Amino acid sequence: MHMSAHAEGPLTPGLVFDMLQAHQRTAALKAAIDLDLFRAIGEGPGDVASIAKHCSASERGIRILCDFLSIYGVLVKEDGRYRHSRTSAVFLDPRSPSSLASIAQFLSNEEMLTPYLHLADVVRAGRTTLAGDGTVEPENPVWVQFAETMAPMMAPMAAPLGAVVLEGHAGPMRVLDIAAGHGLFGIEIAKQNPEAHVTGLDWAPVLRVALENARKAGVHKRYSMLPGSAFDVDFGEPYDAVLLTNFLHHFDQSTCVHLLRKVHAVLKPGGRAVTLEFVPNEDRVSPPMAAAFAMNMLTSTVAGDAYTLSELTSMYSEAGFNGITAHPIPMSPHTVVMGYAGRR
Amino acid sequence: MHMSAHAEGPLTPGLVFDMLQAHQRTAALKAAIDLDLFRAIGEGPGDVASIAKHCSASERGIRILCDFLSIYGVLVKEDGRYRHSRTSAVFLDPRSPSSLASIAQFLSNEEMLTPYLHLADVVRAGRTTLAGDGTVEPENPVWVQFAETMAPMMAPMAAPLGAVVLEGHAGPMRVLDIAAGHGLFGIEIAKQNPEAHVTGLDWAPVLRVALENARKAGVHKRYSMLPGSAFDVDFGEPYDAVLLTNFLHHFDQSTCVHLLRKVHAVLKPGGRAVTLEFVPNEDRVSPPMAAAFAMNMLTSTVAGDAYTLSELTSMYSEAGFNGITAHPIPMSPHTVVMGYAGRR
Repeated sequence: MHMSAHAEGPLTPGLVFDMLQAHQRTAALKAAIDLDLFRAIGEGPGDVASIAKHCSASERGIRILCDFLSIYGVLVKEDGRYRHSRTSAVFLDPRSPSSLASIAQFLSNEEMLTPYLHLADVVRAGRTTLAGDGTVEPENPVWVQFAETMAPMMAPMAAPLGAVVLEGHAGPMRVLDIAAGHGLFGIEIAKQNPEAHVTGLDWAPVLRVALENARKAGVHKRYSMLPGSAFDVDFGEPYDAVLLTNFLHHFDQSTCVHLLRKVHAVLKPGGRAVTLEFVPNEDRVSPPMAAAFAMNMLTSTVAGDAYTLSELTSMYSEAGFNGITAHPIPMSPHTVVMGYAGRR
Repeated sequence: MHMSAHAEGPLTPGLVFDMLQAHQRTAALKAAIDLDLFRAIGEGPGDVASIAKHCSASERGIRILCDFLSIYGVLVKEDGRYRHSRTSAVFLDPRSPSSLASIAQFLSNEEMLTPYLHLADVVRAGRTTLAGDGTVEPENPVWVQFAETMAPMMAPMAAPLGAVVLEGHAGPMRVLDIAAGHGLFGIEIAKQNPEAHVTGLDWAPVLRVALENARKAGVHKRYSMLPGSAFDVDFGEPYDAVLLTNFLHHFDQSTCVHLLRKVHAVLKPGGRAVTLEFVPNEDRVSPPMAAAFAMNMLTSTVAGDAYTLSELTSMYSEAGFNGITAHPIPMSPHTVVMGYAGRR
């Protein structure tokens, strides 16, 4: 949605000023979520006084915040009143089943934001300035928060990913979900195939969130937990499918190949390794969301990246996979990449 | 340039995700300026290794930063190399006479950013959480930084503002420049009218910046300094014109009227009070840059605002001015508003 910046138009410093002030947008959306403003908007009537009362906030603050959100298309202002845009009605009102409000907690997590305070130092060093290995340090509590808050962002990817995993698969199957997090991807398989058994692998406190989600989905009897590091624990075997969702991007390519080899070794012949990734085009600057994700990896990891399809394909191949295919998920920055173990 | 967000299109959480990550853009542009990256881009040849060497930075960091800036239209990537966009060539390369790189220092000033870290609290309180009266505390050193760094942003406004002040004015004239800052506006009058004498009013350390700029422009013999608060010092009299640039927005309306009355009292009959302001339309949500400026006033002041033309007109009228006219400056978020003292 920023592509208009590329258009040839009158030359003004607008883009520079806009970027230097862009941090305000993050703060404004975060503040509105914290103030329960989107519930007030949904309940109406949408005048400043009513919203301020609901939010226990000043009228000056609410008026300026709501105007700001209207400028950026989050709210709609009409005749001095504010109402939901399509985006805020569906994705920000806490009464909406698709509400994403919780993702602000992970994306505005203080640890995740710290490297941006001195990004020049990060660029100089070429790696996160967070301690140790950054977000992939063993038992980093940030992944509990991820599991607890990012599920609404990831939920829409579950069905398309499940379709890739299950295509042509009926009857009993064993699935390993590496870096399970909220567990939604493995749970989706268990829901769609009543004979599937899923093993979630993640840090133990994270798996408690996944198990609770499995319980809510009624599939917990077919859900096992394998706590620990994907690089250290014995996966057990054999599996029909191994999921690696939002995981490879944290590591350098040789580490990814090492892990994919370990995955390959526990798959049945013809079994599938299925990754969900931000996959930019080969130019690495499009599409915007997938390409910009590399910045998140620069600030939070030692050597992670948003890998292109040719890079992912080469890692898969090096680890012994073949029949590698990419399945971009429509309306999302994510792509499912799948490879088969052994001949097919 | 964000108006595309309003367009009816497929409903995706893109806008929410985008806003929650918008802070990255500010950090990225600031880091690139700090690393002298735009000089490296301008000098070429634009490959990652050369840029990294120039910036004494890692190749991983430079590649991800340059890709990120390309995604947002600041740089252009072609065949794996980076080159200037029109924007970065003119406004970010330090070798360009129109370089705005210094404004990042003021706009990313740590004090200015602090309220955004807990914006919900600011909205609740309805005022800055900075100490005292925020940025308008007496002798706040932030205004020295403003004077030293924001001149390139304000320079293009000087000629249009000067035209309004000088229209129909020839021969000797006395001009008072309230909150002179870098002094560029008063200096412009002195340059255009060799018989104009300008008095700059601001905190003493700020006026040293203005005087230095007057010296560079060769008009310092016709430039006097009046250090102190616009609310407390004796302005002297009489003046043909009083400038109030980027000043009224820091205060509530009754304070502005009080100040405008004080200005009115020192103007000759028919003299002009000339403000430069971010003036949003009456809906307060357009145009984007002028309207969004209210957020800066919420976070940094007790009761300031981006005033609409009807509000400014009403303040001017209440203070005794008439013949009030607005002169929007093309390609900028600023408007010059002018009123005459006494009958005309």
